[in-house]
Parts: sequence; C-alpha cells; structure tokens
Amino acid sequence: MTSNGLPFGKGHGTENDFLLVPDPHNQLAFHPHDVIRLCDRRSGIGADGLLRVIRSAAHPDATTMASEAEWFMDYWNPDGTTAQMCGNGIRVFARYLVDTGRALPGRLAIATRAGIRHVDIDTNDNITVDMGRPVLPGPDGINVTAAGHSWPALHVDVGNPHAVALVDSLDHPGDLRTSPLVEPTTAYPHGVSVEFVTVLGPGHLALRVHERGVGETRSCGTGAVAAVTAVRHLRGAHADRYTVDVPGGRLAVTVQSDGTMRLSGPAVLVAHGFAYPDRSTRPTPPT
Amino acid sequence: MTSNGLPFGKGHGTENDFLLVPDPHNQLAFHPHDVIRLCDRRSGIGADGLLRVIRSAAHPDATTMASEAEWFMDYWNPDGTTAQMCGNGIRVFARYLVDTGRALPGRLAIATRAGIRHVDIDTNDNITVDMGRPVLPGPDGINVTAAGHSWPALHVDVGNPHAVALVDSLDHPGDLRTSPLVEPTTAYPHGVSVEFVTVLGPGHLALRVHERGVGETRSCGTGAVAAVTAVRHLRGAHADRYTVDVPGGRLAVTVQSDGTMRLSGPAVLVAHGFAYPDRSTRPTPPT
Repeated sequence: MTSNGLPFGKGHGTENDFLLVPDPHNQLAFHPHDVIRLCDRRSGIGADGLLRVIRSAAHPDATTMASEAEWFMDYWNPDGTTAQMCGNGIRVFARYLVDTGRALPGRLAIATRAGIRHVDIDTNDNITVDMGRPVLPGPDGINVTAAGHSWPALHVDVGNPHAVALVDSLDHPGDLRTSPLVEPTTAYPHGVSVEFVTVLGPGHLALRVHERGVGETRSCGTGAVAAVTAVRHLRGAHADRYTVDVPGGRLAVTVQSDGTMRLSGPAVLVAHGFAYPDRSTRPTPPT
Repeated sequence: MTSNGLPFGKGHGTENDFLLVPDPHNQLAFHPHDVIRLCDRRSGIGADGLLRVIRSAAHPDATTMASEAEWFMDYWNPDGTTAQMCGNGIRVFARYLVDTGRALPGRLAIATRAGIRHVDIDTNDNITVDMGRPVLPGPDGINVTAAGHSWPALHVDVGNPHAVALVDSLDHPGDLRTSPLVEPTTAYPHGVSVEFVTVLGPGHLALRVHERGVGETRSCGTGAVAAVTAVRHLRGAHADRYTVDVPGGRLAVTVQSDGTMRLSGPAVLVAHGFAYPDRSTRPTPPT
C-alpha cells in the first residue's frame, strides 16, 4: 500500500454495495486480510464485497480473455474468499469503468472468473448484464428451515448455487442474520445462497436472500435470476420479463429465446477516496 | 454540494465509527437527509454518526466558545438529529484535526453543544477526553427488560441520559437490535441509552450498549463513563482507574480527584475521500 492510501470507489446496485479498488497492472500486494479489513462496516469502510479492477492481460485468471475483454472483475467476498460472478457486482463494476473513464458507455465485455459477461448501459442509466443460462441440476428433496418453518427448495445453478423456496410471506423466514438450515446437510459442501420468494402476480416476484459467506443482503443479482428460474419451473413460464422486488429496490429479469437471462437495474457510485487498510484494525488499547 | 463531491474522512474509536465532513466556514447547505444518506451503510458510506468540522466562530452554537476553542464538533446522529457530545466521537474528531494539520498534537480545546471539552493526544497515540462530572439525578425504580429478563437500572447523566443495568452475563440481554424496554415509560420522554454492565474484577468492567437513536453499537464513550459511575455507586469506589471492555475494543476511564472523569482509548482514521450524497439514495428502477 502506498503512504497516500489505497484508491477506492464505493457504489451499490439496489443496495448491494461494493468497494472498487483500481489496480490496472495487478501490482498491489493484496491479501485476504486487506479485504476483510476494508469490508468491515465499523473498523473499515464497509461493503458486501470488494471488486479489484485489473486489466485482463495482467491477471493469470483472465489473460485468455484479454483480447475480448479489456477489464477483469477480481471479485472478493467480505470474508476474504474470492467468488466467480455477481450480477449486482458486475453492474456496479461497469458503472465504475464508465464513470472513471476506463470504458465508454454502451456494450462492454467484462472478464470474470465465470468467463466473459456482456453488460449494457442504457440511456435511462439502468445497467443490464447477461447472466447466462441457469440450470436445474437437482437433487430433489432439498429442504430449508428458518424461524421454525420448513419449505421444499429447488436447487438452481447460476454459476453459483442457490436453494430457492417459495413462501407465502417474506416475514415467515424471520431473522436471517443466522443461516437457514439446508437439508440434507451434505447437499452443499461449499455452502449455498438461499432465496425466499413470493409471487406477487404474473411476471412479478419479491424475495429475501441469505448469501453464502455474507448473510442477509439487501439484494442479490444471481438470486433474482435463480428465483425467476424456480418460479417458471414450479408455476409455469407465464412471462418473458419479470419484475423482482428486493429489500434494496427493484430489479428486472428478462428471459431470452435461447433460455439465457438478462438482469437489469440501477447501479451508482456514491463515493471515492483513499483507504488505509493497515489502520482498519483494532489499534493498541490503553492499559 | 460541489460537482466534485463532498469531502469526508472516516474513522473509528473502538469501532464506534464516524464520518467527518470539513466545512470550516459553515458554508454547506447541510440537511438531515444528507446525514441519513451518508450514514446509510448500504446506499451511502455508513457510520454511527457524522461530525461536521466547523470553525467555532462560524457556527451560531459555538461563537461564544471561539476565543478558547478554534473548532466546533457539529455532531449528527445517523437519523438526522443533532447531539451534544460523544466521547468516542470527540476522540475521532481530535484525531482528524491533528492528522489533517488543522491542529497540533498535545492538548486541544474543542467546542461542543455541551460546552468546551479538553482532549489530549499522548505519545502512545491514545486520545483522552475530559468527560465532565457524571451525576446520578434519579429517579429510582427504573427497570430495563431485554430478551425476557428484567433488571433494575440506575439513571446516570453524562450530558446525555443513560440507564445502566448490572448483569451477570452480557449474553443475557440477547439481541439488542430492538430497543430494550425501559420502565416507567414516562421516565425518558426523549429516549435513553441503555448499558448492560458486568464487573470482571476491581477496576475492570465489560459492557454492551443500545444507543439512543442508533441501536446496538460496538462502543460508547459516555456509556463507559456511565457504567463506571453506576458500578462505583452500587459496588463501592474501589479504584480510580477502570478498564472498560466494549465489543469493539478497550477503553480506560480515570476518576479525577474533583469527581470528573477522563476517557482514554485509540482513535484512527481509515479513509478519506469525496461523497455524492445526492446519489446515495435509491435510483429510478427499471419498469
């Protein structure tokens, strides 16, 4: 880290918030503990995740994509682990590239650990990302339990695993600061995000989500896509475009003719500055 | 707000975190909704409070103190209300003044809505503030209830009101995201901060706090002073110096011969930058 601090941006998409750290040439000695410190909401700056902004040619996970996608989204969870893809994260990432002059508005190709994703910024400032084709690989018989209620859940893979439960009311899962119980407990050895979804009408859903490695968040892009996939499977494919209300706002999911889905919504930057992650820890107390 | 954003710093004292907004000449058109937006942890930057850094001569609440104290701490709660004084806040405020070159280390006089407070920065980088003389004005018969348990509580005034309950275990008050019930409900028409305190040994306490207008926080400076005052009243004044463990670290409270108390502990800045509070709200969603 330089003595002047680590440059960062902060932004959010439907209140799923991210720190953006520009490191075009992949020169920062970047450790999981830096991520943990920066994402801590009291002793650091605070965010649901950290996105390092690196030229694809400069990162070993992205060099093969560099001819098509200039920038690589190096995604970190707040617990210091990396992740492949995040629908709201990549929309905030695109906003950052455009607002800082690193890319032009319109259509962008962005390299992620889940491959290249295409992002569009429209004239209403909504940002849309191609989320690929979600799959329903099973197994059947998954159950989630929260606040003393149990529901059957559908396993949806959107590049990351989701267990989706249809509920009558979003109040029923209660307090989601603790993880819902997912059974059989062997179904997800690496954890799973859980969506509780209620159908408000044709093409209109609302959800709450407990994200793997994070806890309950205000929004989850892959979760919105998983929810639409599950509802279409269980209740019929009655629409091609879904409005998905999340605690932090409103997203839209569009189903393409080839079965791929696109996620749309707002994404904004709210601050930029310089951080001192070496100080973002508990200093020596008085004795 | 300027088009380049609102300058801010972020810092914390034992994980009680604050945004600092320099406005030396009191020229910002600053509204409660700006505070609410900036302090929101998902759609803004996030903090337990916002401290505007204003020359005492430039603010009507502080002009009478300007000859003694160059800077006024204009303290805002995250709900957009103002407050008089905060023990951790003023320590972070002093750190900001010194680290940004607005004051020299050593002893500082700082104007607050509770009057002038003196702050010392020592060679170990701990920051100590004179918290005045806490008083025990009564009434008796106050009770606090949380997680199904009830305890008698002592009313301590440290410039702001505290209800202090001695508990056997800090686990007993349970989840403090919701306010503890304080009875009689007429005792605090403007609300009260509640401390749950356990005595670990002579001169050693630990506490949890539910702060008025904020919720459970990682630390509270006036709460630490209120806790020491209550323990000395109920269990005897067995020490002049108390170590007070809070969820976010460790503070020290020293009792002076005149009955005033001094609060010591670490305070650090973790970031600085520019914010766009007009964007720190939910943008127009897709329809």
